[in-house]
Amino acid sequence: MAYELYYWDGIQGRGEFVRLALEEAGADYLDVAQSGAGAQKMMEYLHGRHGYLKTPFAPPFLRDGDLVISHVANILHYLGPKLGLVPPDEASRIYAHGLQLTIADFVAEVHDTHHPISTADYYEDQREEAKNRTKAFLKHRVPKFIGYFNRLIGANPGRSGLILGTELSYVDLSLFQLCEGLAYAFPRAMANFDQDYPLVAALRDKVRDRPAIAAYIKSGRRIPLNESGIFRHYPELDQDPG
Amino acid sequence: MAYELYYWDGIQGRGEFVRLALEEAGADYLDVAQSGAGAQKMMEYLHGRHGYLKTPFAPPFLRDGDLVISHVANILHYLGPKLGLVPPDEASRIYAHGLQLTIADFVAEVHDTHHPISTADYYEDQREEAKNRTKAFLKHRVPKFIGYFNRLIGANPGRSGLILGTELSYVDLSLFQLCEGLAYAFPRAMANFDQDYPLVAALRDKVRDRPAIAAYIKSGRRIPLNESGIFRHYPELDQDPG
Repeated sequence: MAYELYYWDGIQGRGEFVRLALEEAGADYLDVAQSGAGAQKMMEYLHGRHGYLKTPFAPPFLRDGDLVISHVANILHYLGPKLGLVPPDEASRIYAHGLQLTIADFVAEVHDTHHPISTADYYEDQREEAKNRTKAFLKHRVPKFIGYFNRLIGANPGRSGLILGTELSYVDLSLFQLCEGLAYAFPRAMANFDQDYPLVAALRDKVRDRPAIAAYIKSGRRIPLNESGIFRHYPELDQDPG
Repeated sequence: MAYELYYWDGIQGRGEFVRLALEEAGADYLDVAQSGAGAQKMMEYLHGRHGYLKTPFAPPFLRDGDLVISHVANILHYLGPKLGLVPPDEASRIYAHGLQLTIADFVAEVHDTHHPISTADYYEDQREEAKNRTKAFLKHRVPKFIGYFNRLIGANPGRSGLILGTELSYVDLSLFQLCEGLAYAFPRAMANFDQDYPLVAALRDKVRDRPAIAAYIKSGRRIPLNESGIFRHYPELDQDPG
């Protein structure tokens, strides 16, 4: 039976981290919100209509038969072994999950660059605060997170240019997505990205060239980044590289 | 061999969610940062001195023999079955993990009430923004998250007053911690908490009365909440209940 991915329509958002894993593995899946009445089907879960153990707090969530799995990192931890996208030993699986949770924290911080005060208000109502939050994010948080991942790639004894072992993992796919999102949102600030984080940049290129990922990008099924998602390009938030 | 918990000294913070599980289960553990040279030992991990698969991004992390596990939810997902703090079936374990990740998101939002602009700056430098973020947090986010947990407790077919099945889980312990933290940080705004979220409040009382938790609270080992942690009491951020 096909996996069912439930996520908001019209944005890459957090759903894209799951889509990349499903696409890389060539898995059979249905992107429910992109189909007729998909949004309504999703809301039925969020409103508890499917009952016990099937009421996620928010999308994305994945249905696999009788299981409903919410949160990107939880979904990828579940799918990793099934899709061959994580080394099979326990230490690697646990470490990969920790890395993905660090990525989740970073994604939340990216979101807050344009919504530092309230998700209930428009960006335009918190633009000045967004400028200050973005400034701190670019100065302190990007180097802290992306520098960490760059160091880990260098420390991987597999010398594969990947973050874990010698085979592509879902963490690599998510790092690719971070790179693409940052470049879209902050093209000026990221002008020196490849020099500053050469191993992350090389990993990004390696992922982009994977046949399944290249085909997915070409297919038109990958929703373009836009100003409704997590990574948004507001020129007034962008700045010269630090 | 004892578990080793690595976390910042002097605050409950994110480490407390792990401590509560270890305490409830009567597990043998060492709270490393509370011991001599503990902070230095922790930094060795963060600086990558222990090598591959043992370089967390941030505390808390747990060492169990040769495994190093980072992020609260990852740690509790690992410990849950070992400590008997999660139902043993896969669907429950996955759902419990999703709930804990929702709690992690909420905790990050609690943190940002006093640091909405930059973690690199003092609270006093972002006090006005903190007032606005807190206002939105109390109006929109507390009802959304705590209301969700209240509904789930009511929908548990185990009719145990717990969030999963009929036995206490690590998620219940974490919900207790959220209640205690919110009451400490926002005593005015939470004045009607028990009426607004009666099932969560009853669960909190149930956890507080567990012999092991009561003994832990009495022991003096539970670090008092303070203004260096996640839940901080700044009277100017508190407000009348909405």
